[in-house]
Amino acid sequence: AGGIRSPYYSMGEHTLAVPAALFALNRNRLVERLRNNSSVNKDSIVFLQGGNEETRYCSDVGPVFRQESYFHWTFGVTEPDCYGAIRVSDGASVLFVPRLPDEYAVWMGRIAPLESYRERYQVDEVYYVDEIVEKLKESQPSNLLTLNGVNSDSGKNCREATFEGISQFKVDNTLLHPEIAECRVIKTDLEVQVLRYVCDVSSRAHIEVMKRIRPGMKEYQGEAIFMQYCYYNGGCRHCSYTCICGSGNNGAVLHYGHAGAPNDKTIADGDICLFDMGGEYYCYTSDITCSYPVSGKFTEDQKIVYNAVLAANRAVLNACKPGVNWVDMHVLANRTMLSHMKAGGLLKGDIDDMMKANLGATFQPHGLGHFMGCDVHDVGGYLSGHPERPAIPGLKSLRTARSLKAGMVLTIEPGCYFIDHLLDKALADSKLSQFLVPERIQKFRGFGGVRIEDDVLITETGTELLNTVPRTVEEIEAVMAEGKSLKIDVPPAYAGKK
Amino acid sequence: AGGIRSPYYSMGEHTLAVPAALFALNRNRLVERLRNNSSVNKDSIVFLQGGNEETRYCSDVGPVFRQESYFHWTFGVTEPDCYGAIRVSDGASVLFVPRLPDEYAVWMGRIAPLESYRERYQVDEVYYVDEIVEKLKESQPSNLLTLNGVNSDSGKNCREATFEGISQFKVDNTLLHPEIAECRVIKTDLEVQVLRYVCDVSSRAHIEVMKRIRPGMKEYQGEAIFMQYCYYNGGCRHCSYTCICGSGNNGAVLHYGHAGAPNDKTIADGDICLFDMGGEYYCYTSDITCSYPVSGKFTEDQKIVYNAVLAANRAVLNACKPGVNWVDMHVLANRTMLSHMKAGGLLKGDIDDMMKANLGATFQPHGLGHFMGCDVHDVGGYLSGHPERPAIPGLKSLRTARSLKAGMVLTIEPGCYFIDHLLDKALADSKLSQFLVPERIQKFRGFGGVRIEDDVLITETGTELLNTVPRTVEEIEAVMAEGKSLKIDVPPAYAGKK
Ligand SMILES: [Mn+2]
Ligand SMILES: [Mn+2]
Repeated sequence: AGGIRSPYYSMGEHTLAVPAALFALNRNRLVERLRNNSSVNKDSIVFLQGGNEETRYCSDVGPVFRQESYFHWTFGVTEPDCYGAIRVSDGASVLFVPRLPDEYAVWMGRIAPLESYRERYQVDEVYYVDEIVEKLKESQPSNLLTLNGVNSDSGKNCREATFEGISQFKVDNTLLHPEIAECRVIKTDLEVQVLRYVCDVSSRAHIEVMKRIRPGMKEYQGEAIFMQYCYYNGGCRHCSYTCICGSGNNGAVLHYGHAGAPNDKTIADGDICLFDMGGEYYCYTSDITCSYPVSGKFTEDQKIVYNAVLAANRAVLNACKPGVNWVDMHVLANRTMLSHMKAGGLLKGDIDDMMKANLGATFQPHGLGHFMGCDVHDVGGYLSGHPERPAIPGLKSLRTARSLKAGMVLTIEPGCYFIDHLLDKALADSKLSQFLVPERIQKFRGFGGVRIEDDVLITETGTELLNTVPRTVEEIEAVMAEGKSLKIDVPPAYAGKK
Repeated sequence: AGGIRSPYYSMGEHTLAVPAALFALNRNRLVERLRNNSSVNKDSIVFLQGGNEETRYCSDVGPVFRQESYFHWTFGVTEPDCYGAIRVSDGASVLFVPRLPDEYAVWMGRIAPLESYRERYQVDEVYYVDEIVEKLKESQPSNLLTLNGVNSDSGKNCREATFEGISQFKVDNTLLHPEIAECRVIKTDLEVQVLRYVCDVSSRAHIEVMKRIRPGMKEYQGEAIFMQYCYYNGGCRHCSYTCICGSGNNGAVLHYGHAGAPNDKTIADGDICLFDMGGEYYCYTSDITCSYPVSGKFTEDQKIVYNAVLAANRAVLNACKPGVNWVDMHVLANRTMLSHMKAGGLLKGDIDDMMKANLGATFQPHGLGHFMGCDVHDVGGYLSGHPERPAIPGLKSLRTARSLKAGMVLTIEPGCYFIDHLLDKALADSKLSQFLVPERIQKFRGFGGVRIEDDVLITETGTELLNTVPRTVEEIEAVMAEGKSLKIDVPPAYAGKK
């Protein structure tokens, strides 16, 4: 560990080598935007603080460190407790790293010389964190541009840099956020290459789960197979988010899998698995949902719902291109899905009327998708100067209302869920109940849900699908049939109980 | 998810069922200690705050929630954002859980009724967090006993409960910490049963890695196999700490494996693997280190070092029993290891003189072991009223200086490392260099290290070894020979590079 490495990040020959040039390009793009902003003084310095290593409450252990996403996007640094600066005038970049005590070498590994950071991360200069004030003063910046702004997915504020002595500088925390967030919205070719890779790894991991899942298994065993595949085969130490492995009714719980609902149900034979999982490589994310019957064979009812969602997914995939508005895509997905559900006998009445009554939100209470990048719900959904969050109930969950541009990466993830609470509400509301075929709907209670989530790049002419998982009923049944021949480890009942 | 469950925690038939009674017993033991403490007013109420769900900086994702350890020990609650109270006078227990909004049901899962918490966690009463002030007032406590004290492993302060309206109560934050920490030091039979289980799962996972590791693999592929085994087969979603998978020289980096040194070296054919990994089940930890040559066959030099460490480990294991002092055990381990290294020709001179010169710390710069429980470095190492941290250089790393008692669980983890920095220091210091056989020592530079870490329960008469991994050279070589017949997945070189 440590020492001089080639200016690539890689987890081995079987994984992608990511050039440090990716981050140099990100910095250049940022500086260019700032230079074009007449409010930004050319003697300003962008100043960011990386993430810190944390431990759980009073203990001395914690989760494996994962870099703060803005800092990662700008510098690609894997170590905690660093700072970085970029001079707007000429784009010169400086990294500040912790000065490590001698005993670090015994406990944590060889102390890398400053030069090795410069080499690995291709920045212009590297100093210690305790030299920040001194080194910044040499540049006589008119302003430090620090990061401050609200993330529209979490409602939380960005990490704003702070250090001892910052009061000796003039700080502007308003200019940087919209510019850097907008940079993150449009992915470069180098970034897309990483996203392609992590989507490929995650796709293969999903297929592995599809082949190995069996009735009687625990949902989390699917999660275990997925994570192992991503790490062992793809060098992905982290997932992009907590794996959602809902089976049966749990498929209707949108963020199932957290500590309060920890993927711990036994998968029953008739269940649909809704597995929403994505590996992460070098802080670039993926976010893929596959839905399939654990039995390996769709029933006729399962096909109706599945194909309704797939049609919605494909309609959007085919319609996306620069200039198209995301809200319209959500509406298109809803309309397509409702039409198929009507054809399948679950709904009745006029589709236009259903759309006006916003029936879609009864079955899909979430938005169509979101930006994806260094965060799985990537930044830039609602920046000022872009459309605001729609107020209409069915659209207010949308994570952006923007029009598409080449270089955007988004998820397309229509879903259809049978959520008692929402069905009861719809049945009690004559504006909605008129469209429901109650005896058919009743049959689907406990069904859970289907979500089909793809990760796509918007190109100049349309889309590039980044993941490669089986999607049609036929493709899925074929892969699962193949999986049936695999010998599956089934842990025996635990005998050690007393 | 949610709803009424049996008062057991379990991740399925193949895992251990842990009764809620474990925590009722913990609470009773705590209350009994407090009643025996004349400084504690009998009308006091113990008041603890559980851990909160956190997300990474401004993003809306974060690591899977893991409960704060004191709160887990007391209540066994898996959900975030709770509080708990125990009346000292009669031991009555109350849980306060968050009042969840209706939309929680759509996103996170069924909202469990309060009664289901009472049932699952076997507490006397359950209310909402927003009822804390009202409910506490009904009991008219003379004091709230909150947790405040320093963790001697991290130097960090405990999580002290706080809530809106706490200023309406008299709070004492000095009495609780030493009493609850001391309770945690002595494990009950119910706790030992969980520790036995998680050590068993982790042992089997280590064996799996031993069988599947090959020269040319990445260290982290061992980590991936381990974590998958623990989760898939044992229901362990978390590890007790970041896996340390050092090969070759990295074996000498005591806390290798963190984000700055992420188990990313390729394992070379002559390397010793030093793999220190432990699964965690229901917030009970394990901590096992296995050291072995990736080739499956020890060289003569590897045997010398390995057997020196094993002899130290076994000497301590055989000597441990109630009344024995842990510092003496550290000294015993050092002496045993140095004797064997002398016999192996690496050292020369008188063993007593080596011990006086503290030569042991050159090869093992860490302490012999630590308490283990709800934290891997469990609390109680240096409580007041017990021996203080020794000032002598070789002993100051010890995580406790106490005498053993039945019910303590500790790791015994002697190690021998060849750390350039420490060897250079010893060679330059005539008080130490006189004992070194330089041409032999020189040969071991780059060797890395060997650590043999066992988890043991102190019984009335001696010890119970909780883990079951192959330990002798012959046992290890036999298991690894068996592993050679397994077909190992080797991911092909990544072809997608551009
Ligand atoms: Mn998504
Ligand atoms: Mn340990």
